[in-house]
Amino acid sequence: MSDGPLDVVGIGNAIVDVLSHADDEFLVREGLVKGSMALIDTSRAETLYQLMGPGIEVSGGSAANTIAGVAGFGGKAGFVGRTRDDQLGAVFAHDLRSLGVEFDVPPAADGPPTGRCLILVTPDAQRTLNTYLGAGGDLGPDDVDASMVARTQITYLEGYLWDPPAAKEAFRKASDIAHASGRKIAFSLSDSFCVDRWREEFIQLAEHEIDVLFANEDEIKSLYQTASFDDALQHVRGHCEIVALTRSDKGSVVVSGDEVHVIDAEPAKLVVDTTGAGDLYAAGFLFGLSRGLDLYVCGQLGSIAASEVISHMGARPEMSLAELARDTLNAVI
Amino acid sequence: MSDGPLDVVGIGNAIVDVLSHADDEFLVREGLVKGSMALIDTSRAETLYQLMGPGIEVSGGSAANTIAGVAGFGGKAGFVGRTRDDQLGAVFAHDLRSLGVEFDVPPAADGPPTGRCLILVTPDAQRTLNTYLGAGGDLGPDDVDASMVARTQITYLEGYLWDPPAAKEAFRKASDIAHASGRKIAFSLSDSFCVDRWREEFIQLAEHEIDVLFANEDEIKSLYQTASFDDALQHVRGHCEIVALTRSDKGSVVVSGDEVHVIDAEPAKLVVDTTGAGDLYAAGFLFGLSRGLDLYVCGQLGSIAASEVISHMGARPEMSLAELARDTLNAVI
Repeated sequence: MSDGPLDVVGIGNAIVDVLSHADDEFLVREGLVKGSMALIDTSRAETLYQLMGPGIEVSGGSAANTIAGVAGFGGKAGFVGRTRDDQLGAVFAHDLRSLGVEFDVPPAADGPPTGRCLILVTPDAQRTLNTYLGAGGDLGPDDVDASMVARTQITYLEGYLWDPPAAKEAFRKASDIAHASGRKIAFSLSDSFCVDRWREEFIQLAEHEIDVLFANEDEIKSLYQTASFDDALQHVRGHCEIVALTRSDKGSVVVSGDEVHVIDAEPAKLVVDTTGAGDLYAAGFLFGLSRGLDLYVCGQLGSIAASEVISHMGARPEMSLAELARDTLNAVI
Repeated sequence: MSDGPLDVVGIGNAIVDVLSHADDEFLVREGLVKGSMALIDTSRAETLYQLMGPGIEVSGGSAANTIAGVAGFGGKAGFVGRTRDDQLGAVFAHDLRSLGVEFDVPPAADGPPTGRCLILVTPDAQRTLNTYLGAGGDLGPDDVDASMVARTQITYLEGYLWDPPAAKEAFRKASDIAHASGRKIAFSLSDSFCVDRWREEFIQLAEHEIDVLFANEDEIKSLYQTASFDDALQHVRGHCEIVALTRSDKGSVVVSGDEVHVIDAEPAKLVVDTTGAGDLYAAGFLFGLSRGLDLYVCGQLGSIAASEVISHMGARPEMSLAELARDTLNAVI
């Protein structure tokens, strides 16, 4: 345990991903909506796993992926989320700690196993998520270490936290501490179906609590129930201090007060699996923001990190992001 | 459980791989010999895991990788090996069964956990293996189902089986049943250090028990303690019915009686991680052999499978080998 200043802390569901290739017919047969995240219970998780092909296991969880990315850029980062004392819980903890991430929530000695997400990757590199929250679903305000949030520049939370019952109280606690300490709260809308489930609360959050908002095109359109990206942009503009909207290979748009940046996607040599693209964009952006870089550079760092993670299976970077971003960072630091 | 005829059954250590990128300095610091397999105990496994970077978990085990490859070509395959009733054991079993592989050894209810192999992948795509055998180390003759071996064309065993105490008895049992049923025994020398540990026994096996022998250049040179590949080739020639010697990007040499084939490696677009290259060569070769294809085509199928598995992290194919080999197979079947 440490007590030095941190750049970014993530609060989210602790998940190990199980990734497998599947064809489109598999999704249709299983009633899965391509590109979305569905919550599943134990019995559905078992059935679906039996139907899936061979998999690879990689630590995941949206906010945790972002935190791994921040650490990959060389940022000082921490994570809050719940695991069980089982093999997948040990994998999840190792994969964060080995990056130097502070992760001090002790694994539960009983209750459901460590959460996992069954991910079907179709030949178009799109990913379809089926999340069994497991131990992650027990996250509550007691897991949030007040002193950790107070010494952290930006606390980042995932919209998925609205699904487990007590996690939104963890959000409130973190938000109150962060703002009382002059710190920022960043938030991701996570998934358009998640926005559907929690639209009114997310609009309230965007207007009153969130300093830095991340959303992709589908999510921001869902938030304001509009078919037009530009319409959604006009709605959200001015509510949060900073809004970063990602649009896959069309790049991203960043707005802050009168400032607007339209940033190209980083060309990817190979697109294998888009799992984690949004999470890693947030990683680059938040790392840049925590280092006081221009918003345009923050967006560039987001694009570089997203481009790395879509070039292989899994939502955690395999290469050093600091290395990949060296030219970009050398030009500004 | 099934009782139909099988093409290939593998007997080996049931292992889940934990793969992580590392630099050459890491290997030097930890006293690891690049490219080799070292056996480690629980405490060393824990220490080394703590020192490693973030990993991905993929089912592994040399013979099990081969069997997954045979199934990927559309072959009927089975596997014999021991797991524990833990999360990694469930992953190992799922990854084989989801390919249609018969795997009926029940997981142990107590004893050591499912085995794992900590794999450091250096920037040259070379892999260095550190195996904690765990439950796999308890493999013995009782695990070998006599009727399964009797209905299988080729039973394939890994040289690594000589390390756990009772596994060589499992080999003897399988060899006796296979030969009494007019079936073939295939064997891989596995690793040059493994050959060092068991040289005399391996020479006896090669001369008296093995019908199909797989070895890479280092292993066959180690077996006959010679610095010359050609010298080793002359030594081994004539002892086994078929010998397939792999030489990385130099391709492979296959000898059987007077027949000799020199087969090119399949060009790889990308070499990310060479873990499993030899195992997948054996998969293509054995699939072809079980289908009665010419030895040259068997070697080509081996090269195709090896080329797929070195293009990504992990020793199990991510693409359909039947699809990749379609042109080659269409030309001969």
